[in-house]
Amino acid sequence: MSAFETATAVTATAVPGVYDAELHPDWAIHTKPNGGYLLAILARAACDVVDTETPLAVSAHYMRAPDVGPAEIRAEAIRRGRRVSTSRAAIWQNDKPCIEALVSSGPLENAEVDYLSAPPPVIPPPEECVSSETEKFTVELFRNVELLMSPETVPLPTPNGTPTLQFWFRFRDGTDPDVMSLLLAVDAHPPTIFHLKKYGWAPTVELTVLLRGRPAPGWLLCEAATELLSGGWFEETARVWDSTGRLVAQARQLALAGLPPTKD
Amino acid sequence: MSAFETATAVTATAVPGVYDAELHPDWAIHTKPNGGYLLAILARAACDVVDTETPLAVSAHYMRAPDVGPAEIRAEAIRRGRRVSTSRAAIWQNDKPCIEALVSSGPLENAEVDYLSAPPPVIPPPEECVSSETEKFTVELFRNVELLMSPETVPLPTPNGTPTLQFWFRFRDGTDPDVMSLLLAVDAHPPTIFHLKKYGWAPTVELTVLLRGRPAPGWLLCEAATELLSGGWFEETARVWDSTGRLVAQARQLALAGLPPTKD
Repeated sequence: MSAFETATAVTATAVPGVYDAELHPDWAIHTKPNGGYLLAILARAACDVVDTETPLAVSAHYMRAPDVGPAEIRAEAIRRGRRVSTSRAAIWQNDKPCIEALVSSGPLENAEVDYLSAPPPVIPPPEECVSSETEKFTVELFRNVELLMSPETVPLPTPNGTPTLQFWFRFRDGTDPDVMSLLLAVDAHPPTIFHLKKYGWAPTVELTVLLRGRPAPGWLLCEAATELLSGGWFEETARVWDSTGRLVAQARQLALAGLPPTKD
Repeated sequence: MSAFETATAVTATAVPGVYDAELHPDWAIHTKPNGGYLLAILARAACDVVDTETPLAVSAHYMRAPDVGPAEIRAEAIRRGRRVSTSRAAIWQNDKPCIEALVSSGPLENAEVDYLSAPPPVIPPPEECVSSETEKFTVELFRNVELLMSPETVPLPTPNGTPTLQFWFRFRDGTDPDVMSLLLAVDAHPPTIFHLKKYGWAPTVELTVLLRGRPAPGWLLCEAATELLSGGWFEETARVWDSTGRLVAQARQLALAGLPPTKD
């Protein structure tokens, strides 16, 4: 098992739909498990409960940032279908729900592309990109994830006023990406709004990921961009392409800007 | 009450969290209630159950297209917060769940815009735009909604190969838009993929709407665009601006292309 598979594993308990998970410290941001990492845990339970292999659309609403350590995943089948099954899953800790997600899942194949609006962005190759890990921005997640940013879009130490990031993503253990790892790839980057000098905690309120293909082996190319920051709220749209240039994931999140670690 | 308020009203029953709704024939597409219209009904119940006024993020997974007529909404509070409350709501008909949604809700104010990536698109004024209602595309929803499309983006009778629509939206009864009506505005248009000659039913599988502001009175300006169509799946990203140019909603849906009326 890869490090990612191990860290996102869910174990069925004696109670149908209830799974145990262990939230791992090496997939965290300043002690709090990463939101994309948690989404993969939720998706595993949501798929298991309807006997599907791959999520197609995952929508999660974040209520409390859980701590590293044991957590319970409560999943429930809502509908089973041939093309699409629907289920729900929630991460619980200390008898409180932390994140709840709705998941549509089912077969995901790399079919012929009938229409693609634009090719992937062109950024320098990984060896000419810049590690996202700097003296000013070091997080535990980067022990497992290598994120190499296009030099033009690196937000620290010099924010450029344009909240767009372009970067390469891969696992440090040499594992190639699978569909579940796309849930992490859309949320593993520093907040785009660092480019607007809005530093601090940027808690996700809602994150939806559409899974559009099975990634080929190799680096993932990712882009995250923000359209609107107003009243302390911003959204981030993320796209992920595999090493063949296939668009494999589209995501969007609504988040709060530059807050202390709790939302309320 | 406006026609929209009347048609999307939910009535609390004696059972906490259970509401009655009447799915109205004049908000349907070929006899099936419009997905954005249903989203507004879900959001009303989801807000009511946590005593909030406005949704902030609504994520719905569509399982079965309900019929016109009575429906039951089952809503449940998950967490109450000062800035954000979280709840879930589902439309049931004939003892089966049709759509389930997760809703983050709370105060929504028109704060100062700190960053906006681009101004709204410029399209001809409404009087120079084209009704979406043609001999080839007439739906019940247009009895209540006036949708005037930029001539360059009208898909019928001449699809142009680019799955983008730009249009004006307003209610025919003269009511100005409110936050709830944005849930309809993001999903009231013909499928973008008509431009790719993919006609037929395009059932939504997942639709997430982010509410970013309270719309000013007047026309809403909307844009819907598709990036990828592959294997019968496509996504649509929609944006809505109010008459002052404020970006008030951002949405994305995953849908199936050109199908007969059932998904399975």
